[in-house]
Amino acid sequence: MSEKHSYVGKNLQRTDVLDKVTGRGKFTADLKFSNMLYGKLIYSTHAHARILNIDTSEAEKLPGIKAIITAKDVPSIRYGLSPARYDENIFCIDTVKFYGDKIGAVCAIDEDTVYEALKLIKVEYEALPAVFTPAEAAAEGAPQIFEEYPRNLNTEIHQHFGDCDKAQEEAYYVRTDRFQGQRTIHGVIEPHCTIAYWEGKRVIVHAAHQSVHYLQHHLARILGMKEGDIRVITPYVGGGFGGKLDVSGLDISAIILSKITGQPVKMAYDLEEVWLNGRGRHGMDMEYTTGVTKEGKILFVKNEIVIDGGAYTGLGIASAYYAGALLTVLYNFDNYKFDAYRYVTNLPPCGAQRGHGQPHPRYAFESHLDHIAEDLGIDPIEIRIINARKSGDVTPNGYELKSYFLKEANELARDASGWKDKKGKMAKGRGIGVGNGGFVSGAGFCQYRTDLPHSIAMIKVYDDGSHAIVYTNAVDIGQGSDTVLRQMAAEGMGYPYDDISIVSHDTDLATLDFGAYASRQTLMAGWAVKRAGEDVKRKILEMAAEMIKVKEDGGYRSGKLMPEELDCREGIVFMKQEPAVKITFAEVARAYFVKNGLLIGRGYYHPGKLGGQHKGAAVGTSPAYSSATQVSEVTVDEETGMVKVLNTWDVHDSGVAINPNLLHGQVHGAFAMGIGETLWEKVMFDEKGKLLNGNYAEYRLPTALDMPPVHSMILDTFEPNGPYGAKEVGEGATTPTLGCVANAVYDATGARVSSLPLTPEKVWRAMKEKREREEK
Amino acid sequence: MSEKHSYVGKNLQRTDVLDKVTGRGKFTADLKFSNMLYGKLIYSTHAHARILNIDTSEAEKLPGIKAIITAKDVPSIRYGLSPARYDENIFCIDTVKFYGDKIGAVCAIDEDTVYEALKLIKVEYEALPAVFTPAEAAAEGAPQIFEEYPRNLNTEIHQHFGDCDKAQEEAYYVRTDRFQGQRTIHGVIEPHCTIAYWEGKRVIVHAAHQSVHYLQHHLARILGMKEGDIRVITPYVGGGFGGKLDVSGLDISAIILSKITGQPVKMAYDLEEVWLNGRGRHGMDMEYTTGVTKEGKILFVKNEIVIDGGAYTGLGIASAYYAGALLTVLYNFDNYKFDAYRYVTNLPPCGAQRGHGQPHPRYAFESHLDHIAEDLGIDPIEIRIINARKSGDVTPNGYELKSYFLKEANELARDASGWKDKKGKMAKGRGIGVGNGGFVSGAGFCQYRTDLPHSIAMIKVYDDGSHAIVYTNAVDIGQGSDTVLRQMAAEGMGYPYDDISIVSHDTDLATLDFGAYASRQTLMAGWAVKRAGEDVKRKILEMAAEMIKVKEDGGYRSGKLMPEELDCREGIVFMKQEPAVKITFAEVARAYFVKNGLLIGRGYYHPGKLGGQHKGAAVGTSPAYSSATQVSEVTVDEETGMVKVLNTWDVHDSGVAINPNLLHGQVHGAFAMGIGETLWEKVMFDEKGKLLNGNYAEYRLPTALDMPPVHSMILDTFEPNGPYGAKEVGEGATTPTLGCVANAVYDATGARVSSLPLTPEKVWRAMKEKREREEK
Repeated sequence: MSEKHSYVGKNLQRTDVLDKVTGRGKFTADLKFSNMLYGKLIYSTHAHARILNIDTSEAEKLPGIKAIITAKDVPSIRYGLSPARYDENIFCIDTVKFYGDKIGAVCAIDEDTVYEALKLIKVEYEALPAVFTPAEAAAEGAPQIFEEYPRNLNTEIHQHFGDCDKAQEEAYYVRTDRFQGQRTIHGVIEPHCTIAYWEGKRVIVHAAHQSVHYLQHHLARILGMKEGDIRVITPYVGGGFGGKLDVSGLDISAIILSKITGQPVKMAYDLEEVWLNGRGRHGMDMEYTTGVTKEGKILFVKNEIVIDGGAYTGLGIASAYYAGALLTVLYNFDNYKFDAYRYVTNLPPCGAQRGHGQPHPRYAFESHLDHIAEDLGIDPIEIRIINARKSGDVTPNGYELKSYFLKEANELARDASGWKDKKGKMAKGRGIGVGNGGFVSGAGFCQYRTDLPHSIAMIKVYDDGSHAIVYTNAVDIGQGSDTVLRQMAAEGMGYPYDDISIVSHDTDLATLDFGAYASRQTLMAGWAVKRAGEDVKRKILEMAAEMIKVKEDGGYRSGKLMPEELDCREGIVFMKQEPAVKITFAEVARAYFVKNGLLIGRGYYHPGKLGGQHKGAAVGTSPAYSSATQVSEVTVDEETGMVKVLNTWDVHDSGVAINPNLLHGQVHGAFAMGIGETLWEKVMFDEKGKLLNGNYAEYRLPTALDMPPVHSMILDTFEPNGPYGAKEVGEGATTPTLGCVANAVYDATGARVSSLPLTPEKVWRAMKEKREREEK
Repeated sequence: MSEKHSYVGKNLQRTDVLDKVTGRGKFTADLKFSNMLYGKLIYSTHAHARILNIDTSEAEKLPGIKAIITAKDVPSIRYGLSPARYDENIFCIDTVKFYGDKIGAVCAIDEDTVYEALKLIKVEYEALPAVFTPAEAAAEGAPQIFEEYPRNLNTEIHQHFGDCDKAQEEAYYVRTDRFQGQRTIHGVIEPHCTIAYWEGKRVIVHAAHQSVHYLQHHLARILGMKEGDIRVITPYVGGGFGGKLDVSGLDISAIILSKITGQPVKMAYDLEEVWLNGRGRHGMDMEYTTGVTKEGKILFVKNEIVIDGGAYTGLGIASAYYAGALLTVLYNFDNYKFDAYRYVTNLPPCGAQRGHGQPHPRYAFESHLDHIAEDLGIDPIEIRIINARKSGDVTPNGYELKSYFLKEANELARDASGWKDKKGKMAKGRGIGVGNGGFVSGAGFCQYRTDLPHSIAMIKVYDDGSHAIVYTNAVDIGQGSDTVLRQMAAEGMGYPYDDISIVSHDTDLATLDFGAYASRQTLMAGWAVKRAGEDVKRKILEMAAEMIKVKEDGGYRSGKLMPEELDCREGIVFMKQEPAVKITFAEVARAYFVKNGLLIGRGYYHPGKLGGQHKGAAVGTSPAYSSATQVSEVTVDEETGMVKVLNTWDVHDSGVAINPNLLHGQVHGAFAMGIGETLWEKVMFDEKGKLLNGNYAEYRLPTALDMPPVHSMILDTFEPNGPYGAKEVGEGATTPTLGCVANAVYDATGARVSSLPLTPEKVWRAMKEKREREEK
């Protein structure tokens, strides 16, 4: 036991691995209940239209149809994930706002009958003019989608820190660039699915969701129920990435249809429906104006972002704030002007997607910064190191960086990738690029209840000390949080990892936790679990102090030990001064149980008051910030514009890695997601706003064949605000990729493509234009 | 709220009713897991034989066969439910001891393949002489089944209290009678089923079982594992009645086969296997010699019982003790001599069945007592009232009866049934009879760990106070314990029943409880749940005392209230003196949560030291004893001997009925079981010990058509040792039926059938013999 930790920092086996590789683990869609009905939503086939009439009479005659519901059958309450913008109805009441908007729901004894019924339901529309871009939405005389959003402006942000205009006057060099980020979708393996059934006045909801707590909370509000009358269970979840955080029409409809029919109702999206209602990444138009000193030190940044929000708000306010909030975390400058405009349009609503609001702005600013470096003749990594924030910094918007090692990340990525031997020294068509990123480790703020702990954990030990159960409602959506939390519980208790099980994902069985979003669980649920473990350990040491007999002057003394003289590791309680004096945890636990009853530990985490005082400061406020640097090497085919990523080096400053393999897994997955968004992915619509590529054949997701070797490296850092020094990795790892690969492509071609994705056509055209410019 | 209780004593809806009537609830056999294999046990086809060779080679060649195991593949450890008589092996090692003994197990990808394999397995035997009755077993030179049981005597009991011989000299009248009780089986709806799979070093066992704790404990011992490495889950259980308390070959084999194959293994009995290995009621030969005064006061009882135990001990020691232990509880006499002899025979082993060891002796003694009454010219109910024990009595074998109302039960049954107008006044062929019974409310003793609480409960309240979860490992096997415990939790907390869920039947999720046997749960788990509820309430009242503002002298005082001034009922906390001053439980819970974190209550129950000091005193020792009287009216067809029960009146002294409907349900079910055992049921074997009637076609179980109206009445009594004054009903209700119906048949015919069941043939012969005697 010479190492500091027994379980933290170790590549212990994933908790869910056997269930998943054997197929034994159940996802929501795997569940079956007696007399279960199957339901589907009825979708709008207009982007913007008035509903004149809904005729379900033919469908109702179909044998096997159990219920058809539309707006008239459900509460007319408005809801949404942003309390300031409740703008969504369960079903469209008067108008439909996008092609795919929810008009109603059907359930029947089997899926075939449901699809048959959907064909028989006739909706009469009066088409209304529609808008598909922020520009169209903002135009004079544009059709108004919501009364409450004049000129369709949904969210407007103006955050000004320092004095940009003054800094601009003083700057040695000022440059403006514009970039465009596209709409993308999460690409989860498991489409959303919900099964609901009633037990008396209570409804049991099995749902593929990222937060049992939020789903319970919002459903209670929408349905006018008490939270406790809704039990939410999330079986195994096949990926979330932000797309399973919103309350979905499936959730609400399954509950209502089950109430009406008295039978369990299962509702699942097919892939196209995931695209329509999965709430992927916003499209963004981004303009950066940055002023620097001659040495490349950033003096100010003016940042204007125009966002295509789609039809509803959802988490979009947070997305808009995030788009600007975290730039100040990466780079050290005092003068910042961030203006954002999120418009509603007649397209599917956007929401949170891994890196929430960050990847596009990171792509844009990292590209922009490369141009500035080039203009000044500074190495791209050098300019990043010059400007990198460091531990102890406080950003102009009030975020405190307890640990921050972006400089070291750049240095390690530079050295590991052989940057100095490659940059500017490679053959034509081959390039190397760098990109920085990072993310929050949880949101410091709960918008509807500030007095609740964000995470609670409980640990219960078997009466004979032979096993312990960790209860938490952190949600493992595939990222491995159950494993990481088990490791921290084992460390906190001083008890074998193999003797710990985890019970989670169930509002009845486990303890309150806000769930999987904003990369919060390792830090927040981690603190709760660590503290619960330490609470158990404290009780064990107190009991052990009464039990252990130690030699003293040739004799024995008993009951005189102080708990402080003891420690416990790997199931052994021992005297710190004399480790040979020991007793097993199990023996002590057994005695504790006989004396005191249930051996239970509890742990809580509330982030307390964090961050700035300005409007919107809540978004971006976090107990800890990760940073990350990526370097990628690419080739670009001059004939076709095809980009191939050859190699990538990733350095993540995530504090202490609780389970390094899981961290590397996040980095690999994040990189795959990142190159997809950089090179191929884009959600497409026709001129009437109808989705064109809602499937994995026409929406180009990266596959294993597209992946270069990913050299994932961990900085050995320590985050004081994190449990065992840990902070985030899950989302931050996605953020450097877009700019990094784009910069490598620029390095290979000398031609900048300023809109994502960097399709062969765009790259080819950019190279062609460059050649033509040079030929002139 | 003028009533004493809000939830206790009410006919609240069963907790499991929706799951069961909709078919949504899952029993073990309903569960499916990916790659699940199906297994079966290999059974002996000899009653007693030496195993010469087991050839599985042909079976192993069968495609789809995954594993075949026999004694050589498993630990050779001996086990059993009675630590004093570990006499069972996982699989037979050298000899088989009954037709149906476990020789091994097979698993395959489907059930058809398993059955095919069973046909191909060849076992060579050397037949040994077998014994099928205690008389054969005890005979000089009888084959010895176990070395350690000379002359096959498995358990010998000699309990002598007072001085019977002296009392016999003083008695006015002494009579001896002999009776025979047959082997019966529980008749559960759900055959036993177990599914096991491994998660690392831990095995998850889903089993139809009456006690998650005992199953976990015994499996750990048998398999040499830690208790915590075995998670036991009992899904819904379709009846137990004592037959799902033993560790079965299914449990052990499923675990071992799953270990070998790495796949989940499901094993289930078919009906015949339930008969072979379900461990039903022992056959008993009973002799009673009783002496009375002229007035009918019992002076002594000599009781000798010879028991057919079948091949192994199982719970049989307890069965033997129970056969004699509780007679002293019903009737007030000081001189008691109880001698019992349990023999092993080459028939399926017997075990516990509803009323454990009691129904046959009750049938015998109640018949015997009727003869004594008749001989003395005393009314049968009168002689029972004369001898009935009462509250405060201590029996000669040391049992303390805190509440006991057998006299009142007799009086009510007499009056309700119109006994006085009917007894001796009815037409020929019609009769009326009475029988008494009762049972323990839980066993006061745990045989392998005396320091554990017998029941623990935990209650956790949602953060906003909107719902509460009761955690207990009491097992609802259909009797309704989840409902009764929920009611007591609601009462204890002062919180709505509808807002409480129950989590049980899972060693990981819920809290230690010994489970469903000896009619223990209402009292023992009830105490734990009540105390956990009161623990929550205490915390709520303390918090509320800080929150409630009360008027004083026209102004307000705050924070000066003492918790003692408050009470909480139905979710409202109020001032006892001024109930208009109030606050909701939910509001207080929410504040408590913010201030203190998780709102958790805990409750424990340990019976403490109870009962006598003599050997075997542990069996029969209980915190509380129920009593019961039944009166039944029958007709007997003189031509055929067919008995029809026309009507029955049951009075149960079960303390306060927590849920009267559930109590009546127990009485109805117990009566059905009772008349089945009285009139029709008997497990039959051929001359080689092969089971003849292992199915519901040839084993005559009562149906709804056989049931008379059952007038179930509750004595309004209070048990000081029970939570809310409650004591048992589940098993006690079976015990009076056999004697009662037998006495009614005697009353109708004047002919006593002294062996169960009272088949038409036996009744007809008895009537014929009586006629012939009278004609002489």
